[in-house]
Amino acid sequence: MSRWAPDARERLEAAALELFAQNGYERTTASEIAERAGLNRATFFRHFADKREVLFGGEDTLAGLFADGIRACAAGATPIECLQAAFAAADSVMTDAQRTKAAQRVLILAANEEVMERGLLKHARMAAVIRTALSERGVEAITARLTAELALLAFSLGVERWMQGGSFAAHATEALRELQSRAADLDERVVSGA
Amino acid sequence: MSRWAPDARERLEAAALELFAQNGYERTTASEIAERAGLNRATFFRHFADKREVLFGGEDTLAGLFADGIRACAAGATPIECLQAAFAAADSVMTDAQRTKAAQRVLILAANEEVMERGLLKHARMAAVIRTALSERGVEAITARLTAELALLAFSLGVERWMQGGSFAAHATEALRELQSRAADLDERVVSGA
Repeated sequence: MSRWAPDARERLEAAALELFAQNGYERTTASEIAERAGLNRATFFRHFADKREVLFGGEDTLAGLFADGIRACAAGATPIECLQAAFAAADSVMTDAQRTKAAQRVLILAANEEVMERGLLKHARMAAVIRTALSERGVEAITARLTAELALLAFSLGVERWMQGGSFAAHATEALRELQSRAADLDERVVSGA
Repeated sequence: MSRWAPDARERLEAAALELFAQNGYERTTASEIAERAGLNRATFFRHFADKREVLFGGEDTLAGLFADGIRACAAGATPIECLQAAFAAADSVMTDAQRTKAAQRVLILAANEEVMERGLLKHARMAAVIRTALSERGVEAITARLTAELALLAFSLGVERWMQGGSFAAHATEALRELQSRAADLDERVVSGA
């Protein structure tokens, strides 16, 4: 097993997804993931704190890109414009290879509460990163919290649609507009079966 | 130690909060909580799956009350009216005694990531309960998701304000209106330092 592997992280992720699908998430160990990737256990733990982290490294990357996108916006940009910039910045990593991994991940998350819990934590961190980036621009505290929550919902809807095809940024931006419009309609009577 | 204690749950909660504040959350065990409450360890585990659950029993109660409130709404009620009914239904348990406990809890949550993770899971469950109750009334899927997220944000803001005094339902309902109004303003330019 080579100790130096520039693509170690990607190999570990791919090996983990294979083993989770093959033997189940619960029964797969960090050592097995390392072995499948042709690396040793110590290398695994240099890249990931635990088995769950393998599934959520992407969220940390996305959070960083969202923040970069917001920080690069012109002074005075609206909260919606900031989110559009955040989604555009994230688009570079939402590749076809990621689309395939995302579909595998969905199955694992749905079947495992421990993993779902980590996912919620990652989403909360993404929301916190967005909230902070907006606050730094002078967005009021409550508006920053609201915008961050809408961003995460638009992100989730955007990812769901992106998994079927198309550009992530376009889907997420459209979902954001849709959410804003629906929020304005929450005083309309619900017509059951409509 | 009595094996039958009608108020065991409340006693365990009070004992846990005392010990968490006194010795730290990490260093407190379920056995110590039971002992402080004058009960045995088995009784603790009849009421709570683990130490973290002691801090979040209230969330399950609230989720149930939210669902009851929404289900009792007249046919055709708007999503906002449904949430107002949910907050009103929860008001009965948002007592002065709970206000004191809430303040103790905030300190523990802020200091402990493991506990925060469980809190996120509970919030996600509350959102899921609201989403389901709305869907059952014929609210469209995306509107139900959006309404549930806004409900949780209004709930969080409502709890923060209620901790300073006043009625929870009034605070949460006001926060909901504020969020809806702010969502409509997300296309306004941000004036830094405003």
